[in-house]
Amino acid sequence: MTSHGSNLVYEDIEAEGHLIDSNILARMMSGIVELDGDFEVLSFEIGRGNESTSKMVMRVRGRNGEHLTEMLKMLHGLGVVPAHPGNVALEPAPADGVFPEGFYVTTNLETLVRIDGVWCPVWGTEMDLGICVDAEAKRAWGVPLSQVKKGDMIAVGQVGIRVTSQERLREREEFEFMNSTVSSEKPKAQIIRQAATILRETKERGKAAIAVVGPAVIHTGAAEHLERLVRGGYISVLFGGNAVATHDIESALYGTSLGIDMKTGLPVPAGHEHHLRAINQIHACGSIREAVDEGVLTSGLMHALVETDTPFVLAGSIRDDGPLPDVITDTMAAQEAMRPWCQEAGACLMMSTMLHSIATGNMLPAAVTTICVDINPAVVTKLSDRGSFQTIGIITDVGLFLRLLADELEC
Amino acid sequence: MTSHGSNLVYEDIEAEGHLIDSNILARMMSGIVELDGDFEVLSFEIGRGNESTSKMVMRVRGRNGEHLTEMLKMLHGLGVVPAHPGNVALEPAPADGVFPEGFYVTTNLETLVRIDGVWCPVWGTEMDLGICVDAEAKRAWGVPLSQVKKGDMIAVGQVGIRVTSQERLREREEFEFMNSTVSSEKPKAQIIRQAATILRETKERGKAAIAVVGPAVIHTGAAEHLERLVRGGYISVLFGGNAVATHDIESALYGTSLGIDMKTGLPVPAGHEHHLRAINQIHACGSIREAVDEGVLTSGLMHALVETDTPFVLAGSIRDDGPLPDVITDTMAAQEAMRPWCQEAGACLMMSTMLHSIATGNMLPAAVTTICVDINPAVVTKLSDRGSFQTIGIITDVGLFLRLLADELEC
Amino acid sequence: MTSHGSNLVYEDIEAEGHLIDSNILARMMSGIVELDGDFEVLSFEIGRGNESTSKMVMRVRGRNGEHLTEMLKMLHGLGVVPAHPGNVALEPAPADGVFPEGFYVTTNLETLVRIDGVWCPVWGTEMDLGICVDAEAKRAWGVPLSQVKKGDMIAVGQVGIRVTSQERLREREEFEFMNSTVSSEKPKAQIIRQAATILRETKERGKAAIAVVGPAVIHTGAAEHLERLVRGGYISVLFGGNAVATHDIESALYGTSLGIDMKTGLPVPAGHEHHLRAINQIHACGSIREAVDEGVLTSGLMHALVETDTPFVLAGSIRDDGPLPDVITDTMAAQEAMRPWCQEAGACLMMSTMLHSIATGNMLPAAVTTICVDINPAVVTKLSDRGSFQTIGIITDVGLFLRLLADELEC
Amino acid sequence: MTSHGSNLVYEDIEAEGHLIDSNILARMMSGIVELDGDFEVLSFEIGRGNESTSKMVMRVRGRNGEHLTEMLKMLHGLGVVPAHPGNVALEPAPADGVFPEGFYVTTNLETLVRIDGVWCPVWGTEMDLGICVDAEAKRAWGVPLSQVKKGDMIAVGQVGIRVTSQERLREREEFEFMNSTVSSEKPKAQIIRQAATILRETKERGKAAIAVVGPAVIHTGAAEHLERLVRGGYISVLFGGNAVATHDIESALYGTSLGIDMKTGLPVPAGHEHHLRAINQIHACGSIREAVDEGVLTSGLMHALVETDTPFVLAGSIRDDGPLPDVITDTMAAQEAMRPWCQEAGACLMMSTMLHSIATGNMLPAAVTTICVDINPAVVTKLSDRGSFQTIGIITDVGLFLRLLADELEC
Repeated sequence: MTSHGSNLVYEDIEAEGHLIDSNILARMMSGIVELDGDFEVLSFEIGRGNESTSKMVMRVRGRNGEHLTEMLKMLHGLGVVPAHPGNVALEPAPADGVFPEGFYVTTNLETLVRIDGVWCPVWGTEMDLGICVDAEAKRAWGVPLSQVKKGDMIAVGQVGIRVTSQERLREREEFEFMNSTVSSEKPKAQIIRQAATILRETKERGKAAIAVVGPAVIHTGAAEHLERLVRGGYISVLFGGNAVATHDIESALYGTSLGIDMKTGLPVPAGHEHHLRAINQIHACGSIREAVDEGVLTSGLMHALVETDTPFVLAGSIRDDGPLPDVITDTMAAQEAMRPWCQEAGACLMMSTMLHSIATGNMLPAAVTTICVDINPAVVTKLSDRGSFQTIGIITDVGLFLRLLADELEC
Repeated sequence: MTSHGSNLVYEDIEAEGHLIDSNILARMMSGIVELDGDFEVLSFEIGRGNESTSKMVMRVRGRNGEHLTEMLKMLHGLGVVPAHPGNVALEPAPADGVFPEGFYVTTNLETLVRIDGVWCPVWGTEMDLGICVDAEAKRAWGVPLSQVKKGDMIAVGQVGIRVTSQERLREREEFEFMNSTVSSEKPKAQIIRQAATILRETKERGKAAIAVVGPAVIHTGAAEHLERLVRGGYISVLFGGNAVATHDIESALYGTSLGIDMKTGLPVPAGHEHHLRAINQIHACGSIREAVDEGVLTSGLMHALVETDTPFVLAGSIRDDGPLPDVITDTMAAQEAMRPWCQEAGACLMMSTMLHSIATGNMLPAAVTTICVDINPAVVTKLSDRGSFQTIGIITDVGLFLRLLADELEC
Repeated sequence: MTSHGSNLVYEDIEAEGHLIDSNILARMMSGIVELDGDFEVLSFEIGRGNESTSKMVMRVRGRNGEHLTEMLKMLHGLGVVPAHPGNVALEPAPADGVFPEGFYVTTNLETLVRIDGVWCPVWGTEMDLGICVDAEAKRAWGVPLSQVKKGDMIAVGQVGIRVTSQERLREREEFEFMNSTVSSEKPKAQIIRQAATILRETKERGKAAIAVVGPAVIHTGAAEHLERLVRGGYISVLFGGNAVATHDIESALYGTSLGIDMKTGLPVPAGHEHHLRAINQIHACGSIREAVDEGVLTSGLMHALVETDTPFVLAGSIRDDGPLPDVITDTMAAQEAMRPWCQEAGACLMMSTMLHSIATGNMLPAAVTTICVDINPAVVTKLSDRGSFQTIGIITDVGLFLRLLADELEC
Repeated sequence: MTSHGSNLVYEDIEAEGHLIDSNILARMMSGIVELDGDFEVLSFEIGRGNESTSKMVMRVRGRNGEHLTEMLKMLHGLGVVPAHPGNVALEPAPADGVFPEGFYVTTNLETLVRIDGVWCPVWGTEMDLGICVDAEAKRAWGVPLSQVKKGDMIAVGQVGIRVTSQERLREREEFEFMNSTVSSEKPKAQIIRQAATILRETKERGKAAIAVVGPAVIHTGAAEHLERLVRGGYISVLFGGNAVATHDIESALYGTSLGIDMKTGLPVPAGHEHHLRAINQIHACGSIREAVDEGVLTSGLMHALVETDTPFVLAGSIRDDGPLPDVITDTMAAQEAMRPWCQEAGACLMMSTMLHSIATGNMLPAAVTTICVDINPAVVTKLSDRGSFQTIGIITDVGLFLRLLADELEC
């Protein structure tokens, strides 16, 4: 009853009757084994006594559609039928920004819809979307509520829709702790090594790595270590808000972060005004890039991003002062700027920001390996609970973590 | 050396010389006392030995401008001069959205600027603004960075600008614990009584009370108790985000909040989809008010707000699903919707939301009594640290707190 | 493949061979069903192809020993043998306070050892003990390391030892949330009702209810509500430390808890000395009971315990001031005082103390329903993770919780 | 009105009358200045109008007793009298373990009592003791409640008792952040450097450094870095409990801590039993030292302590399994073992244990520089609030902190 992660195509079948004494069960099992398939017994109610019958639901997995079809044909011969036949049901959106009632809500797992008997992949794996279908072209894709147009054909109900289980990472033993939060009381050296491995492999595979960054990264003096990761090519894009960029620029222009001197750790007179003065200076230049070009901004994380042509998305929030001219103040527009990166990402490193991490987590396919670092266990737990399966939650001090991670990556 | 809270007009003066042995100090002090004024010694360096002189900075407080002028005249006769003379310095904004360099950054305390020798109040008390001055009209007001226009005359430097200290509440003893966080280990019955008193007095004084509300208020089943406060007239406006409104409507339409059954506390099958279905239904109606008018939404907190014509501001965030049609997705526009309420408020009750509470706190004058309730000590500490002086931070369970608060208010 | 909670007697059996095609599997399953037994497939490796054989481990459950024996005989006829035969192995303790190497470490689940082919219960269900066996008398009991004597026969290895799975509570649906921490964001009214039900049922069944109490219960003013539970007969014994008793007595004698006035919530001059003065007064009387008898202590929780003859165990800790004469300063002696109550308990209510709750949890059989209340999620998580299966972890304000719990119980 | 930290001997004096217009105030101030003394105005009520008089309490500080007496004589000539004259009042303890009513409760500040007009130091600076006085010998010392004997003469009331303010560290600027908790969001590199400086200076001054250690130090793999500090001579004594020693020994014997493999971070089969097996092995040897001598324990922190002859105190707690033979199970006896170290200490490094840190903090004189490291802000806040003035609270990951601290100290 072993299951191979690679057999992602499956069908659930129902068998009912005198399965045990009439030997049907044994024939089903041996038949699947003979065809080199896999099965998993999902439920089994055994009839007690001679009169009553048994009922079983079994998941049959194949290498691909043809392999699956071959096994289903064999099982059909034993009187066994698919548990959930049928194509996906579609209904038109009644208005712009409105799904038809009973619309299917996506998860962050890879999803298939059955169109005319064929399982077709849904493009754009993301949580809490609807599925828009072009039946003619046998194409399907996820669509956010805010973007649906009147008349779009939207999947409704559960029939003819399938989510595939997540394939595990190859180095299973090394990463067995994944999917669970790493307590602050676990050995740390090993965890840092594993985080480094993930970033290194993501880079080697040519996939994008997203860094989601909160202002504590600046306050703790960790920006220089994140900068090392950026210059080492381990970060493809940075997601953050007004605060992280502002305090980094404040730190570059005034040597303080939120008014605290980065060298002494002591508050500086009138230091609480520095962040607004920093924002004002960038406004005077026009943008962060222009501030770099004009020689106003000559160091720090944002400077490194501009210099290395590493893109960044700064999403607005209602608690922003200013904000910086680079901040996207419309939250839906900010989501649209983040969304394509999420679809392409190979790894995501979330550090010290609940707001931006949850926002990113909402748009990440479950297949993206995610490392979430925060000193607050509640944040790590909350992020790990949101259905992101390939998540390592690390409760630690992000300042020290980034320093040791950059050391480990020798950048 | 007592100081009367009501003597808010003051001038700092410097005296230098043989203050003690030449009897100048005694004459200054007795002179002020004779004129029924107050003084506070800010610093005092005593000359050691006969050759050296002493140096003192003293704050002289008067009932009003005339009273202060009378005392300054007397002190001038003793050779004592104001420590910080001069009018506010002004410079034009170099471009839209850019302050002149060295611009003055406001606090949330009432502020005065000296225009042509006259102290004029700055309208719109809020943290982290610039001050725009119409010298002709002797008028001054706070302006956010995003709204400054090229050529606006903006206050720069520190000279000629004064912040007034915050007058304490009258019932001093009862509220002595204010300005400090109330630990989770303090007696709670008394605290609930005091919170009730604040809301009752705010209502009696005809001032607005803002409720800043996070989704935990819904999840914990406390919405019905907040609804009692709304119907009792204790809440003038509600600030929140997409989540609080969505889960309240989910709760009204499906009996769940984030998929958890509100009666049993257990997850419901496919319950995690309910919030998106709820948003979709409101979209189909057009808005929350229309959903109430059409009879779709018939209970819950949002329904109560609509029914009692209590306004609400729903500010967008990048982690929003949907969002509801009532949500203001542009964060700067959302700030503009919240700002006037903040200026008018008599009290503010912040519950279980760090994002919206900080945003509101940024715009609240320090004089507004603020009650911040959260089960997480870090949130309460963070909010209490942001220069909001009249703040009670209460670490407790917001669900149980609201129930007992509504009981106390008998609504 | 359903499993009945009541079939606690089981044997694991191994079957190997051409199980499917030779029809052995079907005969095993139908044979068990005919005898009205239950089975659970623990592992199943299916032979791929004709040459290879399959291997299965199955757990067979019966109503009792005889029923199980009957089924095992039938299976033996099919060539199936018990997976773990054999009696428990015993070795003498080499010295006082030392177990033999390889000693078996108990869990908090009911445990059986096989002595001469007979499964005998181990008396004293508790985590992290050794098992002492009197083979002659067919008796076995748990023994702490500190109490083992040289020559005691101690169970070693895993053979012939069985832990029984925990029977679930009857009202399954109502309590489905058990075994998991209740977040601070879940509906609270229902949870309080369920906690009340547990205490009420424990009382009705005549079982003991332990209250494990930290000083925050006193500081928050909740002592009066816990007193209501005591007077209502819902608490059989109180476990705590020097602090909870001291601050309760301080509160009775001085009106303060840790120097904070219980009526106003404000610090009292020299209030930080009150706790030591309170301890000193009880020392002058001789004990808490004598202080009650002499009319020195006339109110509060400790007074109520004495008046209602409700026993209490005060266990010492190195951070104690004083301590009170009633405190057991030797930690092993304190464990011995707590241990018998743990074995007899029907329910345990842990409130705002990590130290005493963990200590109690270590000694509680898993079958004891445990309610753990703390405002700190980390404490609740830590307690729920320690293998206490019937645990409800409630993240809330213990002060408000106790008030509403006592209201719910109408005491 | 400056105050020199070194002028620790002072007297509070009261002056009443027409202080300002009769020039008495000026003569007092100039008189003190002439004698090279210092003063601080503690309170000053100014008479309003001609009839009413003023009232002032002033603290006069001198280099030593004689210097102070000289100034008091001068002031006496101006009609000014000491505010609190009189000798310490004494009463006999009414019974063993009982203080007389109204006994004076010590703080952790250096304290003087006035015996026959002479200020004598109280030996044994510690919080929450009584003061025992031998008037004949002009000697005074702190005594815990549990050790007072019937008839001991104990200080009562407040008269004739004085606590000295704490002298600040010399490098004031560098350590200005002391006395306040260091948030997790402050720059960390500087903090680690300062902690290293404190340990280095303590060693150089030949003072003892106490390490108070919780089991998380072992779980996080930081034991090897603490071992480096031990071998580098930076730790004079280790305070901990059964857990830290047990898990360190578990780690040395089995490669796990609480059953988690220290190399992979993964749980090991039956790993939760390792700690009890480790305890049992040490029992078989007799003690930790004997286990080292017999070659059973050959690595780890406890091994390093034994090898370097660094003493340790393991204090018992009711949650202990076992415990190890080296654990002092009587909590009062454990306090007695810790107390002398506390009196002699130059620095104290508290890491990841609330219980042992609070216990140590209770016994530490305020003058001892204390560094408290924990990932939980609540623990750091709680420890910093307990009147230990020279405390740096650092919210960080103790595992990474110790590694970087040992690097900084190059040991």
